[in-house]
Amino acid sequence: MNNKATQYTGNKQFAVIDTQREEPGAGEVRIKVAYCGVCGTDVHIYHGMMDKRVDIPVTIGHEMSGVIDAIGPDVSGYAVGDRVVVRPLDNRAEKPSDKGFSHIAAGLKFIGIDSPGAMQQYWNVPAFTLHKLPADIDMKLAALTEPLAVACHDVRLSGLTAGETAVVLGGGPIGMLVALVAREAGGKVIISEMNPTRIALAEEMGFNVVNPAKTDLVEYVSEKTDGGLADVVFEVAGVQPTVDVMTEVAGIRGRIVMVAIHGQPRPVNLFKFFWKELKLIGARVYEPEDYDKAIALVSAGDLQLGRLVTSVAPLSGVQSVFEQIDANPDGMKVLLDCQA
Amino acid sequence: MNNKATQYTGNKQFAVIDTQREEPGAGEVRIKVAYCGVCGTDVHIYHGMMDKRVDIPVTIGHEMSGVIDAIGPDVSGYAVGDRVVVRPLDNRAEKPSDKGFSHIAAGLKFIGIDSPGAMQQYWNVPAFTLHKLPADIDMKLAALTEPLAVACHDVRLSGLTAGETAVVLGGGPIGMLVALVAREAGGKVIISEMNPTRIALAEEMGFNVVNPAKTDLVEYVSEKTDGGLADVVFEVAGVQPTVDVMTEVAGIRGRIVMVAIHGQPRPVNLFKFFWKELKLIGARVYEPEDYDKAIALVSAGDLQLGRLVTSVAPLSGVQSVFEQIDANPDGMKVLLDCQA
Ligand SMILES: NC(=O)c1ccc[n+]([C@@H]2O[C@H](COP(=O)([O-])OP(=O)(O)OC[C@H]3O[C@@H](n4cnc5c(N)ncnc54)[C@H](O)[C@@H]3O)[C@@H](O)[C@H]2O)c1
Ligand SMILES: NC(=O)c1ccc[n+]([C@@H]2O[C@H](COP(=O)([O-])OP(=O)(O)OC[C@H]3O[C@@H](n4cnc5c(N)ncnc54)[C@H](O)[C@@H]3O)[C@@H](O)[C@H]2O)c1
Ligand SMILES: [Zn+2]
Ligand SMILES: [Zn+2]
Repeated sequence: MNNKATQYTGNKQFAVIDTQREEPGAGEVRIKVAYCGVCGTDVHIYHGMMDKRVDIPVTIGHEMSGVIDAIGPDVSGYAVGDRVVVRPLDNRAEKPSDKGFSHIAAGLKFIGIDSPGAMQQYWNVPAFTLHKLPADIDMKLAALTEPLAVACHDVRLSGLTAGETAVVLGGGPIGMLVALVAREAGGKVIISEMNPTRIALAEEMGFNVVNPAKTDLVEYVSEKTDGGLADVVFEVAGVQPTVDVMTEVAGIRGRIVMVAIHGQPRPVNLFKFFWKELKLIGARVYEPEDYDKAIALVSAGDLQLGRLVTSVAPLSGVQSVFEQIDANPDGMKVLLDCQA
Repeated sequence: MNNKATQYTGNKQFAVIDTQREEPGAGEVRIKVAYCGVCGTDVHIYHGMMDKRVDIPVTIGHEMSGVIDAIGPDVSGYAVGDRVVVRPLDNRAEKPSDKGFSHIAAGLKFIGIDSPGAMQQYWNVPAFTLHKLPADIDMKLAALTEPLAVACHDVRLSGLTAGETAVVLGGGPIGMLVALVAREAGGKVIISEMNPTRIALAEEMGFNVVNPAKTDLVEYVSEKTDGGLADVVFEVAGVQPTVDVMTEVAGIRGRIVMVAIHGQPRPVNLFKFFWKELKLIGARVYEPEDYDKAIALVSAGDLQLGRLVTSVAPLSGVQSVFEQIDANPDGMKVLLDCQA
């Protein structure tokens, strides 16, 4: 039984190989992958930035939807044909010093980076990573569950309540999802973004958008809030200018959620933390309840998630997909159709 | 009726003048000041660092204890002879944009900096700043209420619970008070300090103390916690090395309370905020409940607060007090006896 799989082979190259479907081991299921999205981390891997961490040649991918195709020994609660998504966190090395925070355990392995991922036709994973999907869900949109769960986690950790003002710094795929979830939670959302295509998309989706190169973001937010400024700020851009502005645009007791991954220490205005009693809240991936929330949001169908899908390409087109993402900073989410 | 008052006159100089006691205005009381402590901010003022903010010549001082001497119109609930401390925050310019956080309102005035302070025999203050003291309280220790309330605020905002490990970076007057309050709350406290005299004092008071110039603080805390590291970190030193170590010594989901006032942006390891889901919590002065807690702690008498009083000097010796503080980085809290 065949399995068509993509492999990152180093040097900005992907191979597409024909291999054998594997039987699921104890505690595992085999998934027939429907769609797999390309994440910024996948692009990082393609750029060779994570060659030390990944085990080349490697099948990557962690933003997927699929159907259970076979069930290994010692798995209960699942049946062949179930639609599922995978929460790609392997916490089997968890220790007491992780204090019960499984999703950020020191020995956490990320499935699709530290072990094989979903950019293939058939994929074996531990059953403890699964979340069931409703039978009538749109499988393309279901492939957005993983990044949407990131956004659900970020908004949950922010403690955002209805009526509060949330400023999202960076309107990339993650920032847009954060904005959508924050609005769904009743937040008054303002997005700061510089890319004209992304600005246009965010405006079409009904957001107030500021281009900080043209408009003073702090003044804009101050006017919208009668001087109260932002209750919550999401730093989702990952650059020094947004680190500079996050402490300015947050109001008294404002909460700043650090979603972006900063590869180097950044000068931060700690005086403002003292002066306004700001909070900085680090946020990484998701917990099971964030997946549940994300699945409910995909099912409800109110978030216009389809607008974030830039294109859908066949699995065999993986090489040109990554080349095009590289050439086009305007795109949002590209999906691989893993059965095409 | 006389009032002996000190005045900062600029240029590292204090005058001691004889002036008239003033009648308390509407909503005010006149306090016969018992003791007034010297705060780091007072030393800053003496150094001329705040000449733009203070209205020279100015009577400073905000860490006091005293007795009500006269009561103005429209004051209820107080009687002449009541022992009191002043919470030196004037929030009368508070606005809706301050979101109800009176103690950090944008227009907040700090009494003793922005208006006359307690380094005098008699001091008029608005009655809304008062907290009553028990009749049998030690008035010297009661003068520590203000900095102790800072510590109570910091520990409260940290959410420290019994059994958690707290690392205090900096064992100056504020750091020591934070350590005492954290221990009283059931925390396992480790202090990091470099000054040998302060290290010795902290050890005498029963704390585990690390000199980071000699011992690797992160390794030390890791050993004490089976790799779990600190649940709570208090940054009370205000220097780059403690900003560097705060993100290292905090464990998964660790809370870092920013007590220190950093006059310039500091490089911060934001990656660690993401990776360990750390929280940074800005903390500034106190709220009324922190004063209540501080007074209860002074009254209970369990904190060995007397050991923090380095010396008591007469009001008229103010000039030499500030000169000695400048010459001696080992001292903790110097009190002025405002009736001597
Ligand atoms: N916390 C987590 O678990 C988690 C998960 C996924 C991604 N991330 C991180 O989230 C961040 C965002 O991810 P993404 O895929 O959306 O990235 P992205 O690079 O596509 O989006 C960042 C956006 O910020 C915009 N931007 C750049 N400078 C700006 C400025 N000065 N002001 C406003 N906007 C500006 C860019 O135009 C871009 O649209 C990245 O740092 C990523 O590593 C974190
Ligand atoms: N948040 C507030 O409302 C509030 C109130 C009062 C004071 N403060 C601030 O709190 C801080 C502490 O106040 P303080 O009066 O105790 O000051 P302090 O200067 O007396 O104490 C700082 C201590 O840190 C120690 N230190 C220096 N470098 C160190 C290092 N690398 N590792 C460990 N310790 C180190 C010093 O030896 C000193 O004992 C100051 O920044 C002050 O401005 C804040
Ligand atoms: Zn991802
Ligand atoms: Zn003070």
